[in-house]
Amino acid sequence: MSSNGGNQDSTGGITLQTVRDALIRQEDTIVFSLIERSRFPLNHPAYNASMASGSLAESVIREIEAVYAKAGRYENPEEHPFFPEGLPLPATSPPKNETFLHPAGISININKDIWSLYFEKLLPLFVVGGDDGNYVPTAQSDLTSLQALSRRIHYGKFVAEVKYRDAPEDYEPAIRAQDRNALMKLLTFESVEEMVKKRVEKKAMVFGQNVTLGSGDGNKTNYKIDPSVVSRVYEDWVIPLTKDVEVEYLLRRLE
Amino acid sequence: MSSNGGNQDSTGGITLQTVRDALIRQEDTIVFSLIERSRFPLNHPAYNASMASGSLAESVIREIEAVYAKAGRYENPEEHPFFPEGLPLPATSPPKNETFLHPAGISININKDIWSLYFEKLLPLFVVGGDDGNYVPTAQSDLTSLQALSRRIHYGKFVAEVKYRDAPEDYEPAIRAQDRNALMKLLTFESVEEMVKKRVEKKAMVFGQNVTLGSGDGNKTNYKIDPSVVSRVYEDWVIPLTKDVEVEYLLRRLE
Repeated sequence: MSSNGGNQDSTGGITLQTVRDALIRQEDTIVFSLIERSRFPLNHPAYNASMASGSLAESVIREIEAVYAKAGRYENPEEHPFFPEGLPLPATSPPKNETFLHPAGISININKDIWSLYFEKLLPLFVVGGDDGNYVPTAQSDLTSLQALSRRIHYGKFVAEVKYRDAPEDYEPAIRAQDRNALMKLLTFESVEEMVKKRVEKKAMVFGQNVTLGSGDGNKTNYKIDPSVVSRVYEDWVIPLTKDVEVEYLLRRLE
Repeated sequence: MSSNGGNQDSTGGITLQTVRDALIRQEDTIVFSLIERSRFPLNHPAYNASMASGSLAESVIREIEAVYAKAGRYENPEEHPFFPEGLPLPATSPPKNETFLHPAGISININKDIWSLYFEKLLPLFVVGGDDGNYVPTAQSDLTSLQALSRRIHYGKFVAEVKYRDAPEDYEPAIRAQDRNALMKLLTFESVEEMVKKRVEKKAMVFGQNVTLGSGDGNKTNYKIDPSVVSRVYEDWVIPLTKDVEVEYLLRRLE
């Protein structure tokens, strides 16, 4: 196994290669999570604001995040809650690991944007319309997808940190000038982005096929989610938002 | 999409074919969930009983089930909590759908057995030893796997009901005699079980491969979980426990 999403909040063992391996493994998680969400139709009533604290999905996800917070989940700099306001403190204080990340960048959290994008733009692209009444499993599935996307996008902090450490002299002039465009240019490699988009499309084909015992590799023409949608999700949102996180992180790297 | 796990608590639309399609789709969910759990090592401290209400994993899962219960999840006869004792009532009363299942069988819940099997026997088969500190994501992932296994196994109620409705005269003598062995014989089709075991092994190969952009279909010799383990999980636990649920259900079918 190339990556386990593990104890990477120490300075040891994190390299551009381990970060890339983690991103590649996270692609599988994202594709699995979207395929699993597509088992349910849109289930619009789960998103109607009808309960005191918002929609059913929002209320369920807020309460689950409170459970996770008490158990210490968000002490890990790879984890970002969608509702950070008012979360309970961990019941036990975790060991304070030295963090690989620069402290000024740790608090960056763009989950509000990810939340809106997911519900307003992304979901309608890959789930069918309709209502099957399974609102709570749907919300659980949304949370899994949101977490997978959020983890990938905020992993930009680790990408930025390894790139900065590899060649601080390349980044420092743009950081001192607080020049977002220059940083974005330094962080953009179109050929790599093309490769990522092709690979996630292929993963959607492989993981979304209906596997049967007949000869051949299953019914490949009937994918559980449209592979081009997954490629588009990466092109339009995952890759740009990851780079936004990288830029935000680097802008604070000399604080 | 062949199955969405949807509104099947009405009498309409459930046939042996829809039940089979649902079971086949659930195989994908089970394989995905085991692959995702294998991202983390065993993480033994998550299972040490050290918090007031048991281990960290147990405490997190109990609290999440309470969130789900309040939101009405367990009103659906396809859903079975692992900790049914003392769950809060739903905040809003759901519409009372007519249920497809015979009322006497709805309360069957063998999740205690599934819980023990999962942690004591199944987990050590497919996760590596070690501790990466990601206890809460690990517990979340355990819950997803447990739910997938539980849903599949308790779907035996639907299997039993459609089979009974198709040919009540085949089952009634054994039910009246409360003859478990006779019922088990009536419900056992070895060739079907062999096919299921082969198919889940193939799914583990397809879904667990490392997909790359090179020619060929990725590195098929380096699966994320051992496909033969998935086949064994079905042979030793999923198939027998599903049949146990079927038998228990049928024993109560004439109450």
